[in-house]
Amino acid sequence: MGLVVPLDQPSSASQGVDALLKLTAADMGRVNALIIERTASEVDMIPELSQHLINSGGKRIRPMLTVATGRMCGHRAEKHVTLAASVEFMHTATLLHDDVVDESDLRRGKIAARMLWGNEASVLVGDFLLGQAFKMMVEAGSLDALRILSSAAAVIAEGEVMQLATARRLTTTEDEYLAVIAAKTAALFAAAAEVGGVIADRPREELAALRSFGRNLGLAFQLTDDALDYSGDQAMLGKSVGDDFREGKITLPIVLAYRRGSGTDRAFLERTLERGERGDSDLARAIEMMAQHKAIDDTFERARHYGAIAVDALGIFPASALRSALAHAVSFAINRSH
Amino acid sequence: MGLVVPLDQPSSASQGVDALLKLTAADMGRVNALIIERTASEVDMIPELSQHLINSGGKRIRPMLTVATGRMCGHRAEKHVTLAASVEFMHTATLLHDDVVDESDLRRGKIAARMLWGNEASVLVGDFLLGQAFKMMVEAGSLDALRILSSAAAVIAEGEVMQLATARRLTTTEDEYLAVIAAKTAALFAAAAEVGGVIADRPREELAALRSFGRNLGLAFQLTDDALDYSGDQAMLGKSVGDDFREGKITLPIVLAYRRGSGTDRAFLERTLERGERGDSDLARAIEMMAQHKAIDDTFERARHYGAIAVDALGIFPASALRSALAHAVSFAINRSH
Repeated sequence: MGLVVPLDQPSSASQGVDALLKLTAADMGRVNALIIERTASEVDMIPELSQHLINSGGKRIRPMLTVATGRMCGHRAEKHVTLAASVEFMHTATLLHDDVVDESDLRRGKIAARMLWGNEASVLVGDFLLGQAFKMMVEAGSLDALRILSSAAAVIAEGEVMQLATARRLTTTEDEYLAVIAAKTAALFAAAAEVGGVIADRPREELAALRSFGRNLGLAFQLTDDALDYSGDQAMLGKSVGDDFREGKITLPIVLAYRRGSGTDRAFLERTLERGERGDSDLARAIEMMAQHKAIDDTFERARHYGAIAVDALGIFPASALRSALAHAVSFAINRSH
Repeated sequence: MGLVVPLDQPSSASQGVDALLKLTAADMGRVNALIIERTASEVDMIPELSQHLINSGGKRIRPMLTVATGRMCGHRAEKHVTLAASVEFMHTATLLHDDVVDESDLRRGKIAARMLWGNEASVLVGDFLLGQAFKMMVEAGSLDALRILSSAAAVIAEGEVMQLATARRLTTTEDEYLAVIAAKTAALFAAAAEVGGVIADRPREELAALRSFGRNLGLAFQLTDDALDYSGDQAMLGKSVGDDFREGKITLPIVLAYRRGSGTDRAFLERTLERGERGDSDLARAIEMMAQHKAIDDTFERARHYGAIAVDALGIFPASALRSALAHAVSFAINRSH
């Protein structure tokens, strides 16, 4: 059951994200320049810490969504560049705070900023980047875009608190888990895609389509991440296989394995994840159990489901190179190193 | 050298903040209702944690500034209420993050939220409140107010990082310390006062006056806080005398005492504040040394200096009960429990 990318002409799913990268390259160059410019401060720690994270090889998929949807919808000025940079700052601020909350040692395969500059600096530089993000949104001058992005900021934080409250609860349902990632991850994807249409003054139904595209892409992206954490190629992941397990995170593969598992399986998950008593061979055992219950395969399957909804959402837009590139990017997001 | 409050008619400085409280009571009632309403969330921890802090007896001086300046400038709608609530949310978010950064056990004399709900929740609920603050600003619909408040958010965070970078450095100059509190404290006072004029469409020079009023009041307020920490009445402070000393904070009384002190005095401050080796009798010795060097008296003196500038800034506005009440509030801020 592969993802069908039916919207456009001859090109294989393996074309992946190349077309999108190419079509957005010039705009993304300006986004990146703006990002560097707006991390400047007389307080040296701010650009140092910001750039450590920003230069650590993130894919910039969120700002690219804003740039691509803005252009696809016919925006001719530079607001999509300003909003794209603010979207990336919102995301970077979230990562900095997440690392503090999760006590992570690594981020994108590099030492987490909090390990080099301390938790305090990570909290405060995150706040600075959030402030800069809002300043840039104001510069773009669209109250509708501001409403959408500030709502996303509140929803993201709400999702993080929700996750904190339900952390390590193996009886989390699939729906509850989806509600968490809809808030934590998909809300920013949705907002990033929608504001591209907002600044191009597109009608309500097109904005709804962009929002649906972004939201479902975000869900697919996160679920793929969850599955790759137990099955991916370490070098391509930019992080270690099993990081989620080692941090005791309850993700969809775990939720499925727990529901499908035997009493012994559940006792194993309770020991390793709820009580946090993990030994050297436990990751291998967890992966074996997931394979037995098809928990990883079905997490990829759920990702494909949301990916297909994302691609269909684009259907109301006229055929264009950018529409096609966005559809292929969905396929790429879902088939990363898989 | 008391503060002269020359702007209006018969009333003594001891009238203090009563007139301002009375004139803003109806609006502040609506601000408080909005604050409660906007901490609502299906995630129980969010309203619980927010309200722990919001109900812990803060003076709400910042939102009161927005309400008072908005009314004084003739704003007739409800934008000042919405913006005032967003100002208080920005402030509350800062307090939550500050407590994590400073590892404080108490806030306003109550157990700090982070001690009850954990650092993680304090970081994330702070982010939620910041998101809600921006949503409310967007609802108020003024891009100028948004620009001013989002700039303040970035400046506040920059000030916090600056303080982190210079923390425990006894050779901090008075100017450097002022730059920190101008960013950390005075920027939000300035923004809170200015946006009241912005939504009333007042001319540029009046906005500059409101900004100057807020900024100087903020400096005076913070310096008074710094001095009271070594001299105040514990019950009225809402915190313990000597908290700053016990946390190793470099504030103006310390900056002045270090510059004016003997070699022995400096060695004492280096041991207790830079190296953090503090014994039971050290607070008493620090206070005695400050008295000897007039460090506390002169910190109050500096506060009166900025307070006088704040009062003069109001001079271009026509005489009114609100203008008079704001001037007396400055005097109150400076003479709190003193």
